[in-house]
Amino acid sequence: MAGAPSPPSVPITPLLKDELDIVIPTIRNLDFLEMWRPFFQPYHLIIVQDGDPSKTINVPEGFDYELYNRNDINRILGPKAACISFKDSACRCFGYMVSKKKYIYTIDDDCFVAKDPSGKQINALEQHVKNLLSPSTPFFFNTLYDPFREGADFVRGYPFSLRQGAPTAVSHGLWLNIPDYDAPTQLVKPLERNTRYVDAVLTIPKGTLFPMCGMNLAFNRELIGPAMYFGLMGDGQPIGRYDDMWAGWCIKVICDHLGLGVKTGLPYIWHSKASNPFVNLKKEYNGIFWQEELIPFFQSATLTKESNTVQKCYIELSKQVKDKLGKVDPYFNKLADAMVTWIEAWDELNPSPNADAVVVNGTAKAK
Amino acid sequence: MAGAPSPPSVPITPLLKDELDIVIPTIRNLDFLEMWRPFFQPYHLIIVQDGDPSKTINVPEGFDYELYNRNDINRILGPKAACISFKDSACRCFGYMVSKKKYIYTIDDDCFVAKDPSGKQINALEQHVKNLLSPSTPFFFNTLYDPFREGADFVRGYPFSLRQGAPTAVSHGLWLNIPDYDAPTQLVKPLERNTRYVDAVLTIPKGTLFPMCGMNLAFNRELIGPAMYFGLMGDGQPIGRYDDMWAGWCIKVICDHLGLGVKTGLPYIWHSKASNPFVNLKKEYNGIFWQEELIPFFQSATLTKESNTVQKCYIELSKQVKDKLGKVDPYFNKLADAMVTWIEAWDELNPSPNADAVVVNGTAKAK
Repeated sequence: MAGAPSPPSVPITPLLKDELDIVIPTIRNLDFLEMWRPFFQPYHLIIVQDGDPSKTINVPEGFDYELYNRNDINRILGPKAACISFKDSACRCFGYMVSKKKYIYTIDDDCFVAKDPSGKQINALEQHVKNLLSPSTPFFFNTLYDPFREGADFVRGYPFSLRQGAPTAVSHGLWLNIPDYDAPTQLVKPLERNTRYVDAVLTIPKGTLFPMCGMNLAFNRELIGPAMYFGLMGDGQPIGRYDDMWAGWCIKVICDHLGLGVKTGLPYIWHSKASNPFVNLKKEYNGIFWQEELIPFFQSATLTKESNTVQKCYIELSKQVKDKLGKVDPYFNKLADAMVTWIEAWDELNPSPNADAVVVNGTAKAK
Repeated sequence: MAGAPSPPSVPITPLLKDELDIVIPTIRNLDFLEMWRPFFQPYHLIIVQDGDPSKTINVPEGFDYELYNRNDINRILGPKAACISFKDSACRCFGYMVSKKKYIYTIDDDCFVAKDPSGKQINALEQHVKNLLSPSTPFFFNTLYDPFREGADFVRGYPFSLRQGAPTAVSHGLWLNIPDYDAPTQLVKPLERNTRYVDAVLTIPKGTLFPMCGMNLAFNRELIGPAMYFGLMGDGQPIGRYDDMWAGWCIKVICDHLGLGVKTGLPYIWHSKASNPFVNLKKEYNGIFWQEELIPFFQSATLTKESNTVQKCYIELSKQVKDKLGKVDPYFNKLADAMVTWIEAWDELNPSPNADAVVVNGTAKAK
């Protein structure tokens, strides 16, 4: 399905060009960007180089980017750099932190432009932006899927008071070709390919958890950014490949608490290569066990009314992680601490616009 | 999309031929069955004639059917016939009650065979049976939709302990051409047609309500039948067009309580004709208001552990309806009573196989 890149047939209007950063974690040259050129070139890229910082990553000419390697991360965050994973694509969340934009799109470097059933190249970024800019419907299910898409609406029986929807915080896109399977499923079904193009966007209902994949993901940084922490994975950690899952469970609990929406479905990207299932099994091994305790934990997690910002929610959640998951494995105590460090680092790099001001009689004054 | 009927290109194997009844409420001749002949002819039909019982309904030759008009309903149920709506397609639930089969498929007589994007006629019944015979996944969302469909599976991050799924009680199908809109939306968007074929089946997550449409619906009578009551609508009632919605909210609360699954998505039928929006507005008027109280009621409804059968759940729910919705409008007291009558009538027509037996020392003996 994914052929050689060819210029799109209609000129592309880059939506939110100055309000969105594309975050790419990588260990190799970014030749994959050639295929995305018509779609990504107008945007700013944040490249997070994983692994050996002395290695040079080639970025195709003409892209506007900043690149951070491990040395940069250590220099910028100092001791707090310990919360950013090494030798794992979880390091991408450093890019979310240093961005100054309202929206983030993150994609893996083995993902290419997919085609829709008519053969048209899919502008994944454009679909994500549409998803993020239209409301979600987390409080009641609409059987014709996203009622805000053209040609769709709320069906009979959908309460009118809920039709304004909720602000959309996250847009989770899917993958044609190589599906995002765990190691056991990869081992059992080595030849399975995803060829089903499902022309739908839908809101994950309030109270429902889902497996969030970081391969093709967009979100509103202002609404949910501080909760998009991809945890401690990879080098020196007893687990890998649960970075995006962890973030997905945290953001879902917090979005539910704050009345924000999470969408999944379109857009598809073309996932080119299955990772090695044996290596994956080694990384996932602990996660497969721990997950059986994590899911009930997140399903029953509730946050207090006082947690009325993402940061406060995240700190409250980190305490619950320590209290309730610390006994599953000491790793979760370390992770809970890293969650706090992450928020401290986030706030350091993203000072609130009013942090230096006090409000006196309704008028903001510099301290 | 829906052309003249033509014989399907491959011979049809009628799944569950002896275990499924097709229930059709109607006020007119059933010429629409001609188009469904290749798919429905092997099955038994239960036709519930609404309105004037002296009118003769023509059924195309070659179909195996039983037909009930109002006189039959009154004769069979006696005073309990009051729980069956008159002059409203809600009367269809009488057909669920008199069926002796394990599965029900119900369809409206203005629904025709739709075609998939490849132009192939959709065997809606076959897809419903597939949906009902494969498990649901109400406890966690799978981003590649129904993991039991060919070419799909559970994605990375889906807890292994939940992969056996839950028994599927309900399969809710969709509609191409005329979408199932309420009167206000019909009035605002008279020309909107549903042309989007979404190639997905998915489970409505536990704890999430949805608008269940009775136009193209299948269910497992043994698992959920006694809760599939379509309420008091039409003649002598202050409301119409909320029959299937009411049933949908009741069955969802009960399925969630009993650990059963509800699927929506495929199959599509071709809905040929929009009903009159002015007439619809008159019917829906009260429902539009009441619904704003009904949804929070059903969202917060919980059932006790003692309610371990559908009947007990339904009786418990009827009490809550009386307690909490009676103050919204006296209609709900009447409806709560009708819910009890419905269960009494159901049990009368569907005596439990063990109702006349007592178990003595593990051995069943006739009383």
